[in-house]
Amino acid sequence: MEWKNLDELNSYKLLIDYKNRINLKNILNNESGVHRVKKYQSDMSCGLKYVYAAKEIDNNIIDLLSNLAIENNSVAKYKLLLNGEFINTGENRRVLHHLCRGQLGEDVIDNNINMREFYKNELDKIKNFSEKIRSGIICNEKNEKYTTVVQIGIGGSDLGPRAMYIALENYGKKTNKLKLDAKFISNVDPDDALSILSNIDISKTIFVLVSKSGTTLETLTNEAIVKEKIIKNNLQVNKHMVAVTSKTSPIANSSEYMEAFFIDDYIGGRYSSTSAVGGVILSIALGFDVFEEFLDGAHSEDKNSLNEDIRKNPALLDALIGVYERNILGYEITAVLPYSNALSRFPAHLQQVDMESNGKSVNRFGDKINYKTGPIIFGEPGTNGQHSFYQLLHQGKTIVPIQFIGFKKNQFDEDVEIKGSSSQTKLCANLVSQVVAFALGSENKDNNKNFEGNRPSSLIVGEELNPKSLGALLSHFENKIMFQGFLWNINSFDQEGVQLGKVLAKKVLEKQSSGILEEYAKLFNI
Amino acid sequence: MEWKNLDELNSYKLLIDYKNRINLKNILNNESGVHRVKKYQSDMSCGLKYVYAAKEIDNNIIDLLSNLAIENNSVAKYKLLLNGEFINTGENRRVLHHLCRGQLGEDVIDNNINMREFYKNELDKIKNFSEKIRSGIICNEKNEKYTTVVQIGIGGSDLGPRAMYIALENYGKKTNKLKLDAKFISNVDPDDALSILSNIDISKTIFVLVSKSGTTLETLTNEAIVKEKIIKNNLQVNKHMVAVTSKTSPIANSSEYMEAFFIDDYIGGRYSSTSAVGGVILSIALGFDVFEEFLDGAHSEDKNSLNEDIRKNPALLDALIGVYERNILGYEITAVLPYSNALSRFPAHLQQVDMESNGKSVNRFGDKINYKTGPIIFGEPGTNGQHSFYQLLHQGKTIVPIQFIGFKKNQFDEDVEIKGSSSQTKLCANLVSQVVAFALGSENKDNNKNFEGNRPSSLIVGEELNPKSLGALLSHFENKIMFQGFLWNINSFDQEGVQLGKVLAKKVLEKQSSGILEEYAKLFNI
Repeated sequence: MEWKNLDELNSYKLLIDYKNRINLKNILNNESGVHRVKKYQSDMSCGLKYVYAAKEIDNNIIDLLSNLAIENNSVAKYKLLLNGEFINTGENRRVLHHLCRGQLGEDVIDNNINMREFYKNELDKIKNFSEKIRSGIICNEKNEKYTTVVQIGIGGSDLGPRAMYIALENYGKKTNKLKLDAKFISNVDPDDALSILSNIDISKTIFVLVSKSGTTLETLTNEAIVKEKIIKNNLQVNKHMVAVTSKTSPIANSSEYMEAFFIDDYIGGRYSSTSAVGGVILSIALGFDVFEEFLDGAHSEDKNSLNEDIRKNPALLDALIGVYERNILGYEITAVLPYSNALSRFPAHLQQVDMESNGKSVNRFGDKINYKTGPIIFGEPGTNGQHSFYQLLHQGKTIVPIQFIGFKKNQFDEDVEIKGSSSQTKLCANLVSQVVAFALGSENKDNNKNFEGNRPSSLIVGEELNPKSLGALLSHFENKIMFQGFLWNINSFDQEGVQLGKVLAKKVLEKQSSGILEEYAKLFNI
Repeated sequence: MEWKNLDELNSYKLLIDYKNRINLKNILNNESGVHRVKKYQSDMSCGLKYVYAAKEIDNNIIDLLSNLAIENNSVAKYKLLLNGEFINTGENRRVLHHLCRGQLGEDVIDNNINMREFYKNELDKIKNFSEKIRSGIICNEKNEKYTTVVQIGIGGSDLGPRAMYIALENYGKKTNKLKLDAKFISNVDPDDALSILSNIDISKTIFVLVSKSGTTLETLTNEAIVKEKIIKNNLQVNKHMVAVTSKTSPIANSSEYMEAFFIDDYIGGRYSSTSAVGGVILSIALGFDVFEEFLDGAHSEDKNSLNEDIRKNPALLDALIGVYERNILGYEITAVLPYSNALSRFPAHLQQVDMESNGKSVNRFGDKINYKTGPIIFGEPGTNGQHSFYQLLHQGKTIVPIQFIGFKKNQFDEDVEIKGSSSQTKLCANLVSQVVAFALGSENKDNNKNFEGNRPSSLIVGEELNPKSLGALLSHFENKIMFQGFLWNINSFDQEGVQLGKVLAKKVLEKQSSGILEEYAKLFNI
């Protein structure tokens, strides 16, 4: 396989030379616009659909993008990854998060271990353990059932599992599958842990300590706060803590934990929601069957990402459109706007997945590159955002491409009809109105009331947010980001940019700082 | 007063012509760097300090910015605003949120009403009512004390009060001032309200309905869901609801509310945290004295914003540096990164205040302008963000100026010492290390481990996050944004960009849509 920089590809040069720009207002504002909306859709799994009619592309550009994907060998690279190639060049590691949800490539044998078997074995352990907790076979010191599960982890051990839990909490309530409340402690700010601890009954709580390396500063510090509280309450640590870590970590074999679940170096933190990192807490709180459905959803969408035809490969198409927006149209930012309150932390999770994966300036071989890479990602749920930052998106000086997400049904089986429509209908009506308002704008002689339009957006629409569709949604974005990494020829799976701060912080804590580092530390009396 | 566009000012032209760019790495990486950190600080009120040593400016640029502020008459415009001038040109309204916290200008008489007296009168009502609720003089149907207060509001009626409550919740626990838990319902997504309602005891809950106009779609819809639940529980609506609205709104005199508190058209939604919009819920949950301290903090920082010397006016200086970054250096984005978990939703609040205020393309007279205006704002608390999107900030292709916030002490009186340092010390050590890592970078022959540095940041450092310092912090950013509006010559106090979506949504709900609006609506079976 040849790995070439984006600007080495002929199809990229053709894309740069292709100067026809799409005016969304013109192209969508007539009967052919309606036809375009019907046509510019791509089916995903689990009832989802990717609609890209309001993107600044046309058939010619899609063909150019298709050529780009072919010349880049995007799908072939994905297959290499699935087959266990050491795609993570910086750290010389395989990238196996897809294998946690199912097998799509060849067997991956690592050190004589079939990695799919390894992940399945951990899943069995999770199934077994979570069922015992939920049924009360495993109880606390007083033979009471546990009521709360608290994850201690940061970054990928926090954002993904937290976002997924919030996404499924109402679903769990409606289906009576939610048996334990889940909470999360992440920040080294002691007020984070203390605030959570002040709100729970520690005697009925299981803490899930998540650190792949077993050395994460924040996580170990929070573990210490939690342990102190457990002991102060005359409770046994090993009745209240389990670990998710790698087999080689210092905490892997500690007797302090009731149980240890394993991940490995081939699961990047930000891609670990579908591993034991997400699995333990989601299975304890919501049930293993919910977690399994979530994995199934992700797996089925992983399959779609194998399609060579970009019109039938939504993740790849989304990736290509993003590259077009970033490198040809010059947009710096992407907003992720889910019209589902349950997805309130999904944008924060994607912020990590995307920005940590593709916020790079060197290619996978360590050579500097001369084109833009990953955008800034932000977002809040609609309709909340409409009453907040949408003003700038509509009338500001910076164009921000948008990824809308919405569902036909809400999660609870309840709603209220007011003035002839339910809340859910109002929510969806707002979503589609925003797509159209951004694209078409609206002319007004009063400049202050004029909307220029031509603001691009895509839309993922689904039946309802449930474990399966959530899995598919997550897979879509993970794979989109992976494909963009291939296109930019960067390594999306390391994160050297987080190291320098750690080194300096250590200096400060060891009183080894000098110069402005020392001077800034003085501001905090350190 | 002359209101001129930014590009009409001579001092702006001088700024454009001044081509000396600051290399932070060079300027900070020696003894003079240490001196610079000492010198580039500006005292704020309530123990806060604004540190701008790691910004790409020097004395020459500060002088040019000072001239810009003088030529723009920035402080004089602020005084006009304080004196009740109709600064909000689009809606022909005064802008009086400062007056909610104290009087700094002349008496503002509107329709024979002294507006300061009006706000003070509402404060008295809030004091009186909240004390009765907290002490149990006002009880529920069964003579039980209320335990929960739920705000129903969206946008400015949600983000600010919610962020402020989260910021003070731990403080309230520590000081035993937190008597009622506060929750918030905002989204028209029915799952938002249903999820909150499934977690509370409605019989012991007071709902605060907040809508200035009394017509906000989301808020009235959520009110209906809540009322239905109240009635289903055989409870009386007027034992469980109060309203915050304007005197002229359709809900102002309804007998359905136990009490009504008033705001007026001169308090913009996003600037309403220090009005009854924030006051009712914060006073009920945390006590009126806490809310009063919060107002005092904001008021004292409002005073600092009157200083003509930009070196002694942190909000104005911050505004000018932001304009320099946006219009001269071309940065599109600003990250707000508080190293305090209690400020977890403060960036989301600022996202509204900033982007809704200054995301405009016309000046205050409705003429199109040819320079960039408000940036995109996003942020999450550190150290969480370090394990998420900081990768891009350090090594990505887009430079994102940062506003750091941190405090010497945490909110709880508790902490844990590990390896010779407390969690709070670790938190602060991380903060200062990030400032330095971004500014100085670190050279490495391995490009993948190379940090270019020259990433600018400012820092607000305080003793601790309490009601007073929170008020000062809020005032700082509100006034920064106001000054930027003056500099860009835009009206920061209207939001016409939110209207088009509402109009289209109404069409969809009334089955009046056509063209692509109809086609998109079909995707959701509407």
